Amino acid sequence: MSDQTVPADDRGLLLGDGLFETILAVDARLVRLDLHLARMARGCAVVGIQPPDEALAREAAGRALIEAGLVSGRAAVRLTLTAGSGRGLDRPVPAEGRLFVQASAAAPLAAAPVTLATASIRRNQSSPLSRVKSLSYLDNILARLQARQAGAEEALMLNGDGEIACAAAANLFWVAEGRLWTPALDCGVLEGVVRGQVIAAAQGLGVETVQTAAPLQALEGAEGVFLTNSLMGVRAVGSLDGRPLPASRLVDEISSRCS
Amino acid sequence: MSDQTVPADDRGLLLGDGLFETILAVDARLVRLDLHLARMARGCAVVGIQPPDEALAREAAGRALIEAGLVSGRAAVRLTLTAGSGRGLDRPVPAEGRLFVQASAAAPLAAAPVTLATASIRRNQSSPLSRVKSLSYLDNILARLQARQAGAEEALMLNGDGEIACAAAANLFWVAEGRLWTPALDCGVLEGVVRGQVIAAAQGLGVETVQTAAPLQALEGAEGVFLTNSLMGVRAVGSLDGRPLPASRLVDEISSRCS
Repeated sequence: MSDQTVPADDRGLLLGDGLFETILAVDARLVRLDLHLARMARGCAVVGIQPPDEALAREAAGRALIEAGLVSGRAAVRLTLTAGSGRGLDRPVPAEGRLFVQASAAAPLAAAPVTLATASIRRNQSSPLSRVKSLSYLDNILARLQARQAGAEEALMLNGDGEIACAAAANLFWVAEGRLWTPALDCGVLEGVVRGQVIAAAQGLGVETVQTAAPLQALEGAEGVFLTNSLMGVRAVGSLDGRPLPASRLVDEISSRCS
Repeated sequence: MSDQTVPADDRGLLLGDGLFETILAVDARLVRLDLHLARMARGCAVVGIQPPDEALAREAAGRALIEAGLVSGRAAVRLTLTAGSGRGLDRPVPAEGRLFVQASAAAPLAAAPVTLATASIRRNQSSPLSRVKSLSYLDNILARLQARQAGAEEALMLNGDGEIACAAAANLFWVAEGRLWTPALDCGVLEGVVRGQVIAAAQGLGVETVQTAAPLQALEGAEGVFLTNSLMGVRAVGSLDGRPLPASRLVDEISSRCS
């Protein structure tokens, strides 16, 4: 870990005022970096922060890997963009972003299916933050903590209307009636990079993906449930609230197409 | 502003994982510091972070004022407590807090009533964060931005059920039927230090305060509406969504008892 520091008047630190991306690196290659930078730029438009210079961000991401000595195997590069320095809710005008980049070792891929528990904390779909990757992430931390306390590894989050939204740090899909299902973005869902890949991979297999609002009960009849994010790719869900979920061959097929 | 820095792997910075308090100082006296420290300790229990040593926090707050040369007039001291260093949603165990303290000049008290506009971003009352002062504050920043774009100074936030909750950075009260009304805490409301003072001051005037869930329409018939927070104390609301609101003598009486 480097001894990088940030000014204590940074708005990311004081008020969660910023965005981030976590990018998988394999043997120093940044996986789907273009898509991450594009999503950060879209998020900047939503929250009103100047996006980072793309060439500069690319260069900093590559350099962080080298400086951390993480040039072989799996690693994670995190781009953090804050709204710069300033106190109080009203941002200085213009709000110039502050970008910093960190590389760290990535956990090995888990072979076993993940266990989920439903959290009581809901996604706030009235807020644009439910659809961008913002630094105001404490709800997700607390949802994960609830899941851990329930003996599970990850949280299933519903939205304010009780519809399925996502995991604390992943998108969620399920297989039913020969199709793939996933919550629509307006259910309070981040537009995950791997989420998009999965939808494309399913299409390549001739499987339609329905993006929809669905109640928790939709998972009861599912033939398979899985999570996606950039670091773990596609990972099957083995149980929800202690109830085992079936394994689906389609999940393996999609996983192999997305890795 | 000091040149204080924080490690770039701080969880407050990376994930909004922490709490804060903003304390008014008048002539180097920290106003209601006990209540702020008690609220931070309650918030720590809610989010699972080790609370700071109280004597240390007091001492740091006083020193920050002196070091910033803010020993006369109004100033603001901010205590920020993060969950320390660490990557990823799961906190290191034990999660040791990192406290830092900043002093800055406080804006002069505004004489004119504040103008409000209703924001589309709702308070997420399913989350304990709606009742503590956490670093994940970007929803409030965006609500304030919406209000500014509507030509108002501050945002009125409803909760997910459309009930009145609070302003982006203040509690809200209204006068009706000879009583004081304010949203109940479970509407998704911070337990404001001045909020508590106002309820006590009203009681001293023989005026009951009803803590309740109420629709936006409740403000239409109000005889007076006001906001409270530690830096501004009590401030009358002059208009909501462009519609003027009446001035109430009771607001002035309560204000003079809380200053």
